[in-house]
Amino acid sequence: MSQSAAEAARSPGAAPVDQMAVRRVNLVRVLGEVRSAGPLSRATVARHTGLTRATVSSLVAELIERRLLRETDYQQDGTVGRPGRRLEIDGRGVAALGLEINSRYLAAWSTDLAGRPLHERRLVHDATREDAEVTIRTLAAMAGELVDGALRAGVHTVGIGVAVPGPVDIATGLVRSAPNLHWKDVPVAGLLRDLLGLPDGVSVVVDNEANLAALAERGHAQSAAADLLYVTGEAGIGAGIVADGRLLRGAGGFSGELGHIQVDPAGETCACGRTGCLETKVGLPAAMRVAAPDLVSRQAAGTAFDDPQEQARELLRRAAQGDPRALTGLDEIGRWLGIGLSIPVNLLNPDVIVLGGYFAAVAPYLLPAAMRELRDRAVAGDSAVCRVTGSALGFTAAVRGAADVIVEEIFADPGRVGVAS
Amino acid sequence: MSQSAAEAARSPGAAPVDQMAVRRVNLVRVLGEVRSAGPLSRATVARHTGLTRATVSSLVAELIERRLLRETDYQQDGTVGRPGRRLEIDGRGVAALGLEINSRYLAAWSTDLAGRPLHERRLVHDATREDAEVTIRTLAAMAGELVDGALRAGVHTVGIGVAVPGPVDIATGLVRSAPNLHWKDVPVAGLLRDLLGLPDGVSVVVDNEANLAALAERGHAQSAAADLLYVTGEAGIGAGIVADGRLLRGAGGFSGELGHIQVDPAGETCACGRTGCLETKVGLPAAMRVAAPDLVSRQAAGTAFDDPQEQARELLRRAAQGDPRALTGLDEIGRWLGIGLSIPVNLLNPDVIVLGGYFAAVAPYLLPAAMRELRDRAVAGDSAVCRVTGSALGFTAAVRGAADVIVEEIFADPGRVGVAS
Repeated sequence: MSQSAAEAARSPGAAPVDQMAVRRVNLVRVLGEVRSAGPLSRATVARHTGLTRATVSSLVAELIERRLLRETDYQQDGTVGRPGRRLEIDGRGVAALGLEINSRYLAAWSTDLAGRPLHERRLVHDATREDAEVTIRTLAAMAGELVDGALRAGVHTVGIGVAVPGPVDIATGLVRSAPNLHWKDVPVAGLLRDLLGLPDGVSVVVDNEANLAALAERGHAQSAAADLLYVTGEAGIGAGIVADGRLLRGAGGFSGELGHIQVDPAGETCACGRTGCLETKVGLPAAMRVAAPDLVSRQAAGTAFDDPQEQARELLRRAAQGDPRALTGLDEIGRWLGIGLSIPVNLLNPDVIVLGGYFAAVAPYLLPAAMRELRDRAVAGDSAVCRVTGSALGFTAAVRGAADVIVEEIFADPGRVGVAS
Repeated sequence: MSQSAAEAARSPGAAPVDQMAVRRVNLVRVLGEVRSAGPLSRATVARHTGLTRATVSSLVAELIERRLLRETDYQQDGTVGRPGRRLEIDGRGVAALGLEINSRYLAAWSTDLAGRPLHERRLVHDATREDAEVTIRTLAAMAGELVDGALRAGVHTVGIGVAVPGPVDIATGLVRSAPNLHWKDVPVAGLLRDLLGLPDGVSVVVDNEANLAALAERGHAQSAAADLLYVTGEAGIGAGIVADGRLLRGAGGFSGELGHIQVDPAGETCACGRTGCLETKVGLPAAMRVAAPDLVSRQAAGTAFDDPQEQARELLRRAAQGDPRALTGLDEIGRWLGIGLSIPVNLLNPDVIVLGGYFAAVAPYLLPAAMRELRDRAVAGDSAVCRVTGSALGFTAAVRGAADVIVEEIFADPGRVGVAS
C-alpha cells in the first residue's frame, strides 16, 4: 500500500480511536504532573502541559470521579484566573497488593495509590518441599484475606504483583523455572486469578524477585539513582537492573541471571549442572559452609534453623563477636562477590549496587574485600567503581516492588481504575 | 520552602519559560510525527498530536523556515478541511558528520537529516605509532575538507560525532583511555573544536565506537530489535548495548567493557595487566595466532599487512579454502566467543547480538561452536538463546552511528538548527 493510500485508509475511520488515544495520553500527563509537582491548580496544570483549560477541567473531572485526584482545602493560588482549589493525588480508595514466593516464606505488602502502606504479612512456608500448587493455594488464601479485608474498608485492590525467584514470561505470568523451588513452567498468574476469582479489570503481574526489588530500591529515596543494580543474596543469586531509570527486563524477561555466570572454570559443580557458577561461591549455603561450618553439619542432622533471615542474623552475630572463622569466611565470600560484581560493573557501569538478602545483613564484613576486587577489575578505572551498599529495605524489597509495579500501572493507564460507586 | 510557596514562586515569573519549554516539546512532537508517519497534512498532524490546528500551523512554519520540513507537491488529502499540501522531512540543507579513530585507520561518513549519505572517506593511519595530537590534526584536516565542501554546496554541518576505541566522558568529550592507541585523558572534543574553529551551535559528540556501532545496527532495518548487543572484533573487544530501544551508556559512559571480563583465571596476561580477559582469547591477535600463525611470524618480521580488514579477509580466504589450521583455530575462537557472549546473554537477555569487525567476516566459521557454548550456558534455557549474526555494515558501523547520533540530536531539539539565510 502506498503511503498516501495508507493515510487515506487511516484518516476517516481512525479518527475516534486517535482521539481516545490522545485523551488517554493526556490523562496520564495530568495525573503525572500532579504526582510530581502537586498540589497544583488546574491553571498551573494547563500551563505545564500545554493543554487548554477546558481540556484540563474535563480530564481532572474524570480523574476525580475515578478517585485518583482530589481537591485540597487550600484556596489561595498565585495564578491568573478564578481562584480555585488545588489538586493532589487521592488514591485512598485504590490498593495495590504485592506478594512474594520465597523458598522459605510467603509475604504480602499492600499500599494505596499514594504509596501509603496498608498491610504487611509474612508466613513461614517451605516452598522447596511443597507442591507448586499447594504453595500457590496458600499464597492465594493470604492474598484473598487482604483483598476482602480492604474491600470491607471500601478500598478496591486494582492489581496484584507477585515476586518469584526465577525467570518469568512477563506477558503470561508463567514462571519458566525456579530451580531453588524445583519449579518448571508454573502458570502463577493464571492459577492466582482462578483461585481468587479475579475480574478482568484486576491485573496480575508476575516478575523476578530481583527485578521487583530493584524497582523498590530505585523508588526508595536513598538509592534514587538512574543506573542501579540490585543483587539478591539468598540460596540463589540474581540481579535486577535499572538502567536510565527503567527496569531492564531483556527481550524475554530473562535478564539479571548473574548467579550462574561462570567465575571459576576449575570450580565445583553447581545445582544447575554447570561448573563454577557465582552462586557456588557466594550463595547463602556457600557462606554458611565457609563462615559457620558447624551449623551446616547440625543443619544436615535436622536440628538447626534454615530460614535465610535467621542464618543471616547468626552470621552477623558471629562476625560482630570477632569469630575468626566467620571473619575469614565472609572475607573470602566478599572477594568472590567483588569478582562477580565486576561483571555488571564493566558491562553496565551502574551508579550504585544495592546488596539484598543476607549480603545486606553482613555487608560490613563483605565490602572491604569486594571493593578491592572491584577496583582491580574495573576496566575504566576508579571512576567506574560504583558505590556498593546494603539494602535498607532488607527482605521486604521484593514484595514492596511487587506492589510498586501495580501502582505504576495505574499511573500509566488511569482509565483502568473503575469509577467510584 | 513549602510546596505552596514553591508553586507561588514558580508561577508568575516562570510562565514564559514554561511556554518556551512547551513549544520546544511540541516542535519535537510535530517533527517526530512527520518523520515516523509522513507525509502528513497539517490536519492529520493536529489530530495525531492532539494540538490545535493553529498551533500546528505555527510550529510547521518554524520547522519549514529551519529547512527541517517541506511541503510535498501532492495535493489530494483524505481529511476534512481545506485541501492542503502535505509535509515531509526536508533536511537537505543540514549535514551530520561522523568520524572514527581506529588504531589502523581514520574514517568519515556524512549524511543529510533524512539519512541520505553524502560523503565517505577512509585514510590509512597508524594511530598506535603517532602522537594523539598528530592523529587528531589528521582527523581534523579530513573533517574540515568535508565541512567546507558541504558548505560550498549550501549544506550546513550541524554537528560531528566521533567514534573512539575506549571509554569516554560523554559530557566533556574526553577520552579516558584507549589502551590500543596508548591514549589516556585525551580531550578529543575540545581539540577538534579548536582545530576546526567550530561555532558554539555546532555540537561535537565523542563516544565509544561500540556504542555508536550499536546505534547504527539498531537503525539498520535488518536488526531493528529493541534489545541489541553489538560486539566489536578487532584488536580490542567491546560491546555496545541497546536496551528497550535506547543506548545504555551507564552512569559514567563506561558500559560495554566486555573485553576485559575474566573468562579464564588460569589464562595468560592481557595487555591491560589483568589475567585471562576475553580479549586474550578472541581478539584479532589471538585469532591470527591460532588460525594463521605463519602470518604472525611474518608480521613480526615486518613483512605482512597489519590492517584489520586485510587480516579478516585473509582468515576468511583460508577458512573458505578449507585450510585445517584456520578451521580449527576459528572453531576454538568461536568456543571462547560463545563463553564471552553467554555473559551478556545471561545478564541482559538481548533479542540479537550483532558481531562486528573481523567476527563479521568469519562469522560462519565461529558461530557453530559459539552457539553450542551459548546454549549450554543460557540459564533460562533455549528461549533465552538469542540470534547471533554478522554485521551487514562491516567496518563502517561505528562511523555511521557517529553521524546518526547527530541526526537524532536534531530531531530531539530542532530549534538548534539555524534559520536559512
